[in-house]
Amino acid sequence: MASNFAYKNVRDFEFMIQEWLPTEKIFSYKQFADYYSKDDVKAILEPVRNMCKDMIEPLNEVGDEQHVRFENGKVITPPGFGDLFHYLQEEGWGTSNLDDSEDAMILPSIYYAMVNEMIAAASPMFMPYVGLTTGAADLIVEFASDKIKEMFLPKMMDGTWAGTMCLTEPTAGSDVGDILSKAYPTDDPAIYKIKGQKIFITGGDHDMTENIIHLYLARIEGAREGTSGISLFVVPKYWVNEDGSLEDNDVVATAVEHKMGQHGSATVALSVGDEGRCRGWLIGNPPDENGRAEGMRQMFQCMNFARLGTGLLALACTANAYYNTVEYCRDRVQGRPLTNPKGDRIPIIEHEDIRRTLTMLKAHVDAFRGMIYKAYYMFDLRKFDPDPEVREEANNFIEVATPLCKAYPTDEAWWLIGECIQAYGGYGYTEEYPVAQIARDVKIYSIWEGTNYIQALDLCGRKWTMKKGTVYQKFMQQIRDFYQENKDVPGFEKEFENFGKAIKAVDEMQMAIGGYVGEGKISMLPLYARRILTATSMVYGAWTLLDMALIANKRAEELGADHYDYNFYIGKVMSARYYLKNVVPTVWSIAEVVKTGDSSALEIPDAAFDY
Amino acid sequence: MASNFAYKNVRDFEFMIQEWLPTEKIFSYKQFADYYSKDDVKAILEPVRNMCKDMIEPLNEVGDEQHVRFENGKVITPPGFGDLFHYLQEEGWGTSNLDDSEDAMILPSIYYAMVNEMIAAASPMFMPYVGLTTGAADLIVEFASDKIKEMFLPKMMDGTWAGTMCLTEPTAGSDVGDILSKAYPTDDPAIYKIKGQKIFITGGDHDMTENIIHLYLARIEGAREGTSGISLFVVPKYWVNEDGSLEDNDVVATAVEHKMGQHGSATVALSVGDEGRCRGWLIGNPPDENGRAEGMRQMFQCMNFARLGTGLLALACTANAYYNTVEYCRDRVQGRPLTNPKGDRIPIIEHEDIRRTLTMLKAHVDAFRGMIYKAYYMFDLRKFDPDPEVREEANNFIEVATPLCKAYPTDEAWWLIGECIQAYGGYGYTEEYPVAQIARDVKIYSIWEGTNYIQALDLCGRKWTMKKGTVYQKFMQQIRDFYQENKDVPGFEKEFENFGKAIKAVDEMQMAIGGYVGEGKISMLPLYARRILTATSMVYGAWTLLDMALIANKRAEELGADHYDYNFYIGKVMSARYYLKNVVPTVWSIAEVVKTGDSSALEIPDAAFDY
Repeated sequence: MASNFAYKNVRDFEFMIQEWLPTEKIFSYKQFADYYSKDDVKAILEPVRNMCKDMIEPLNEVGDEQHVRFENGKVITPPGFGDLFHYLQEEGWGTSNLDDSEDAMILPSIYYAMVNEMIAAASPMFMPYVGLTTGAADLIVEFASDKIKEMFLPKMMDGTWAGTMCLTEPTAGSDVGDILSKAYPTDDPAIYKIKGQKIFITGGDHDMTENIIHLYLARIEGAREGTSGISLFVVPKYWVNEDGSLEDNDVVATAVEHKMGQHGSATVALSVGDEGRCRGWLIGNPPDENGRAEGMRQMFQCMNFARLGTGLLALACTANAYYNTVEYCRDRVQGRPLTNPKGDRIPIIEHEDIRRTLTMLKAHVDAFRGMIYKAYYMFDLRKFDPDPEVREEANNFIEVATPLCKAYPTDEAWWLIGECIQAYGGYGYTEEYPVAQIARDVKIYSIWEGTNYIQALDLCGRKWTMKKGTVYQKFMQQIRDFYQENKDVPGFEKEFENFGKAIKAVDEMQMAIGGYVGEGKISMLPLYARRILTATSMVYGAWTLLDMALIANKRAEELGADHYDYNFYIGKVMSARYYLKNVVPTVWSIAEVVKTGDSSALEIPDAAFDY
Repeated sequence: MASNFAYKNVRDFEFMIQEWLPTEKIFSYKQFADYYSKDDVKAILEPVRNMCKDMIEPLNEVGDEQHVRFENGKVITPPGFGDLFHYLQEEGWGTSNLDDSEDAMILPSIYYAMVNEMIAAASPMFMPYVGLTTGAADLIVEFASDKIKEMFLPKMMDGTWAGTMCLTEPTAGSDVGDILSKAYPTDDPAIYKIKGQKIFITGGDHDMTENIIHLYLARIEGAREGTSGISLFVVPKYWVNEDGSLEDNDVVATAVEHKMGQHGSATVALSVGDEGRCRGWLIGNPPDENGRAEGMRQMFQCMNFARLGTGLLALACTANAYYNTVEYCRDRVQGRPLTNPKGDRIPIIEHEDIRRTLTMLKAHVDAFRGMIYKAYYMFDLRKFDPDPEVREEANNFIEVATPLCKAYPTDEAWWLIGECIQAYGGYGYTEEYPVAQIARDVKIYSIWEGTNYIQALDLCGRKWTMKKGTVYQKFMQQIRDFYQENKDVPGFEKEFENFGKAIKAVDEMQMAIGGYVGEGKISMLPLYARRILTATSMVYGAWTLLDMALIANKRAEELGADHYDYNFYIGKVMSARYYLKNVVPTVWSIAEVVKTGDSSALEIPDAAFDY
């Protein structure tokens, strides 16, 4: 019974769509108005929850035990994975809002994200096969010619083919500008010969589909160095002839990584064009006369969505670990109350430190959800709102929220799930219970899609200064406005006092870093960036928690403690209280550290690390 | 090349023994005066370091891959484990200071701990076989009759037999007082029939030795309920007849746990006396007329040592992960300096966030070492000093230091090693590099030997109030005295300002909890106990770091930057600076949280955890 999908209901999703976020705006868009409303949450998501339990959870255990295997040059996925992939794509859960044709039944991103959260919770290792196929298809939808679209999209959407993103190479990970993959022109201006090595390619090869469509970064001969000279190609594992037949395209899997977790996810090293036979379709235009190419700009356009999706994966793992831990702590009987040591033995959920652990987990899960779903809401505005100004504002919000939503949940998930293991005690350390696997699965998210250091540099470098600082300032102003409007709400005085203090502290961090940089101490920015990202995320998280809690508190008071839904609402209030009073004080602690400006890590000689 | 024992030297051990702790006191004791001095560090520890590299490291990889297997009722250890066990015991690294005969060549605990740290770093999964044999033998040395000593000790010490501790049962983990194992008198007053189930028994069965000697907790028929009715028995896997021959003793392995890490360590479920044939030797006296037995008191006497040893294991894992990460970050080239983006590519150790990560790791490793070796020093005083008052004071110190040394390193190790994975990037998540395994191996230590919640209750319950609070107050007074004596040392003003603030903050936490308890809010103590333990540990760690840094700083100034040893000393100074300015502010942040006294975790209804 190792794997266990422990989501009990979709109540929290209902709350976010029906009671918290102003989703009537989304459902008024022409793409959705005739098909969906905010009242459909249960109708849409309950069947998905059941599917996750019945179809996906069982494969998660199989995948963890059997691993992806690499035999005679073939990448073999665990049994059942191929069938599940086809099923999910056919049902439209994989690529559901890519189709931009008039009559397509597409879901708003916010619904789609909730579907993905549950699928990821049921099997973190399976989700990337679906998610990367979506990501690859998305790039084709956005930037490719109609010919390429027609050739690849239908079969990617129905699950006949899968997709990947090929960025990382042995010597180029965080610094993608240093990739060595090359592309050489052919007689057809849209087709290039491709040669290179890629590593850590999730779903880079497998036996689930008849073809795999790689979205591949390479530098066209003569293009400039660095990221600005990189182009994006469609490099299929099997070349698609005009008549639809397939032929080998010289894309060879050379290894499968043995990972700490995600055992059923194929992380593949690829050797491309070794025999000089690999061809790829260029997406967009070739480099201009200055050698400037379009690949990184194209990739970046989809990157915010992929980064937000990574935060969602960490949220899914944390939430599922939390729900499992709750179940265990209700069942496991051990010890007696400290306040009544001669009393009966009690389930451990009654022990104070276990209650604290569960409340802490819930507060973080609620904060992650608040941060991430508010950002998905903005994605729907950005994509579907007819007013360009609304789209622009939504995009600005996303620019700031993305590094926070990617890094914060993926950083915290590791120790939060560690605390789940702790609550289980010795059983948590065994693979008979689910939390050990979730811990092993979750650690990759703080690394992929740009490590969390990259995210922190994105926040304190690009996002702080974007459009002369106005983008970041508008984001913070929304938070300040919320504080001003609500700081005197009775019953939340201490919470808002801490919230105000935290907002001020984040401002002070930015000022302090500005001061250091002004003095020429540029290294102080990267030195403190990760901690500043954490603090800023806590303020964003606290905002969403308080916003939800004020609504929930009103509902709880209206309903009274005997109402069946009271516990849901009061739980939301407690999440906010716990987070504001126990977690948020970290924000001004970080501010103090930033202002102190210790630079020992810059001064210490390398040789001192021998000891 | 997954496993890698990356200790490069024994310089830090030299420093602690030769320059920091007043070890001349230890080496003046009659047990050591003729054999050892503080100048032997290299002579004793360098060969051990080489042995760890040559003999132990290779088996650590084998063990992780091959796991302990359970086949046809037999527990099979990975190849080479048995030979290594015999070798270590024969060489005296296992049980070296147990022999209390006049002419025994025994090592001081502090040396012995350094040996253990390195063995544990080379193979966390192997160390418990040695450590538990020592622990079991130690209980026999302390409490058993001469007859039992003669029967078991020689063969345990030379590696012919191994030992275990049998406490946990399916329904009794943290609450050992609820064990169901029973003991029934026989015609021989020293021998009892034993019946029960044990789980999570480390080394509980295996094929490395011809016999396994279980130190077994059970309740003699008629003894009182709870911990005070429990007795301690020697229950060998094979009964030892008077002539030395062995016969089956009805101790049956029923399962081996599948764990997240420590794959080569046999964690066994035992069924004892199922056929009514199991016998055990009672240690000490049977229960008195009130049903009070001696077992828990005996067990507790050795428990402080076992708990300190657990902290040592977490230190070993963290240090080895840190040293490995340093090596990787020196080799891995990626990106360019933020301050010179057009410059050459650089090894990642030059990136600011990587430097911060390594400095943070070093600061924690140095703090753990300071805390733990100061406690081991006290163990030598307690055991060997001729003056009962010195022994008493040393024991008082140990009482307070034990929960801190057990819980703090084992709590922090998990996220610290997570940050090692982060520094490696994608490679850190693969099992081709060592840090993933170290993370998997380390998580158990926060659970075993009393979970860290148990440690926190020990601190805030037993230790705060022990001898009317004088034991704890004396511990804190030593810290305050150090602060007063050194607070004006030039160049460390901010460090001591923070140290003073942290000492005050820990006092305030105790006051706040006293206030809550005075108001009848007893649950506030367990609710905050783990955080208070963390804060108190940081103060203890900061003390040792500053103490070491003041010595090191003087030496660095004397030697000058060109001296080969300068980097060692300046590294110690930087550790203290980093810790005091970046970690210690957490202490008053925790104090603020404790004083705020949020009780949302107590108020939240259980049903709210469904969401």
